[in-house]
Amino acid sequence: MAFHPPLRDDLRGDAPYGAPQIDVPHLMNVNENPFPPSPEFIAHLQEAVGRAATGLNRYPDREFLDLRARLGAYLAADADLPAPIPAEQMWVANGSNEIMQQVFTAFGGPGRRALAFAPHYSMYPEYARNTLTEFVTEERGSAPGFELTDQMVLAGIERHDPTIVLLTSPNNPTGTALSLDLVRTAARTLEERGAILVVDEAYAEFRHAGVPSALSVLDEHPNLIVSRTMAKAFALAGARVGYMAAPRPLVDAVRVVRLPYHLSAIAQAVAHAALDFTDELLGSVAFLRQQRDELAAFLTGRGHDVAQSDSNFILFGTFADRRAVFEALLQRGVLIREVGPDGWLRVSVGSAEDNQAFRTALEEIDPA
Amino acid sequence: MAFHPPLRDDLRGDAPYGAPQIDVPHLMNVNENPFPPSPEFIAHLQEAVGRAATGLNRYPDREFLDLRARLGAYLAADADLPAPIPAEQMWVANGSNEIMQQVFTAFGGPGRRALAFAPHYSMYPEYARNTLTEFVTEERGSAPGFELTDQMVLAGIERHDPTIVLLTSPNNPTGTALSLDLVRTAARTLEERGAILVVDEAYAEFRHAGVPSALSVLDEHPNLIVSRTMAKAFALAGARVGYMAAPRPLVDAVRVVRLPYHLSAIAQAVAHAALDFTDELLGSVAFLRQQRDELAAFLTGRGHDVAQSDSNFILFGTFADRRAVFEALLQRGVLIREVGPDGWLRVSVGSAEDNQAFRTALEEIDPA
Repeated sequence: MAFHPPLRDDLRGDAPYGAPQIDVPHLMNVNENPFPPSPEFIAHLQEAVGRAATGLNRYPDREFLDLRARLGAYLAADADLPAPIPAEQMWVANGSNEIMQQVFTAFGGPGRRALAFAPHYSMYPEYARNTLTEFVTEERGSAPGFELTDQMVLAGIERHDPTIVLLTSPNNPTGTALSLDLVRTAARTLEERGAILVVDEAYAEFRHAGVPSALSVLDEHPNLIVSRTMAKAFALAGARVGYMAAPRPLVDAVRVVRLPYHLSAIAQAVAHAALDFTDELLGSVAFLRQQRDELAAFLTGRGHDVAQSDSNFILFGTFADRRAVFEALLQRGVLIREVGPDGWLRVSVGSAEDNQAFRTALEEIDPA
Repeated sequence: MAFHPPLRDDLRGDAPYGAPQIDVPHLMNVNENPFPPSPEFIAHLQEAVGRAATGLNRYPDREFLDLRARLGAYLAADADLPAPIPAEQMWVANGSNEIMQQVFTAFGGPGRRALAFAPHYSMYPEYARNTLTEFVTEERGSAPGFELTDQMVLAGIERHDPTIVLLTSPNNPTGTALSLDLVRTAARTLEERGAILVVDEAYAEFRHAGVPSALSVLDEHPNLIVSRTMAKAFALAGARVGYMAAPRPLVDAVRVVRLPYHLSAIAQAVAHAALDFTDELLGSVAFLRQQRDELAAFLTGRGHDVAQSDSNFILFGTFADRRAVFEALLQRGVLIREVGPDGWLRVSVGSAEDNQAFRTALEEIDPA
């Protein structure tokens, strides 16, 4: 008799999540930064890792307040805050995935709901599923703006009574940024209801000049978490360093459920080394913003609908058969992502060569 | 009005788990390996990290089958198996903490129970709490043997009807190893009940010659998971590399709930580098075993009760006021652990200097 592993009932039939990992010349599918680290940064990283390695037989610092302080200072610079965010208001984990799972573990669970607005980042339901939190969604505004309004957010909160609301700015996969007014309204409303607001700013460094970060209002709300990552602007997707800023009681709640020593001494050293090279690593951001705007203009010029993007990717459409377009691009060595509403596709902004290859391939497939 | 963060009700009042991180000359409290990496290993590690860093702008390999294959080969050598354990039967995460949390996420949850035998590793209830699994315990045999018998295990299973049973060999904090017969009996009984057995072998490399690993019977049981770590024998607590061997359907179940890209490209490189230096890194194991046996003889000679240890630590007692002994040792620069049954203390086997300092301090405190 075959043994049936006692998988949790609600997990049966689920497959491991993840975009295909295919090796093609132009990887434009998972919003990676196309620019690898410089030899100078790699040498610096090796030095930092070598230093950390001398004590590698010991457990790592469980609280890493020095790293948290530096990230708080970095965020203050990014969002033009008057003072660094204190270390005690910062937290770091192995990717923002782990940050989010820790937040859901602390504040979610059976009988609680997390609300997001579709189209949303495809991992959100996984955080909810893993932590047994009910995941509910409402729709963002219609294409191609995909705007989110106060009214939509308030109606969603009223309808679902969530404990956690996820707002994403810029949103993945649409690229849409949020206004501070909307963040304030959502945070205040949730505060009255005893609930928290998580603003996912994984792509925030790519926002247009003048577009605000929710960090600007961090001090106004006792229930606001802003999450960030080194994966995108810092070009360190492989290093898995996610982090968040929040009022101290929320950070302390997350500390209760974190696995002790979750962040290795090596990961801490890598994050420090990256902060030492902030200027260099963020050097690509201006270029990618410009390429994004040019790519958006190109797509608009071809008559596509294009979602206004403050991120390093563009959602565009619509195609009667998006799968066919995706596959024809792939045949030409360009891997993009079949994601978002029916008929839409998402392309990550790559290097000049990537972006040109994408344009050329799209013109071949679908001559104007 | 103050905002009360909506912490999950059952988490209220919990503090972040972890032993004190105090800087004293003799750290003998968390079963770390006292020997730091050699300059040669550090140089090799830096080279490996440098290679991985060239692609750090990209997400890491989500499946890391090459690393899993190498760990499968390492385990086969350690447990004297006829063939390597295939990559598909291996899994790796950021410390065995994360391995365990993934296992509990896949197989635990509300309405399910995990059973362990006390005294047990202090993190077990945390895995259960984080995943909303009910945690139940039964007692191991009486001091100083703390033996676990088939009868105790079968009675515990009968009483609690667990979905997950945790057996630890060698056990933390007692150091007691399990027989293969007991593992077989427990696995078979749980198989009939549709439940899984997790044998936690974090300290297995320190077992005496002839003491078996549960890996010897991995192929006999469709419901057996054996977890291991690079923290102890490999002397890499700071690197956070835990791993497990199991039948493929159990590994695949864990893959469903793992966060994608949970293991960074750097962590993968570190694990590979460690495997390249297996002989050197495990070089300390023979010495630590010998020191353990000498330390046990010393403690026995002083008239203490000493739990027979197959690990790199020793549980000894009993003291009317163990806290006083702990503190008097700390005053002398020796940090051990106040853990285990009332009156007992646990000391990690350290370097020759550490062990001598511990002996001297104990003799000062409590002259024979």
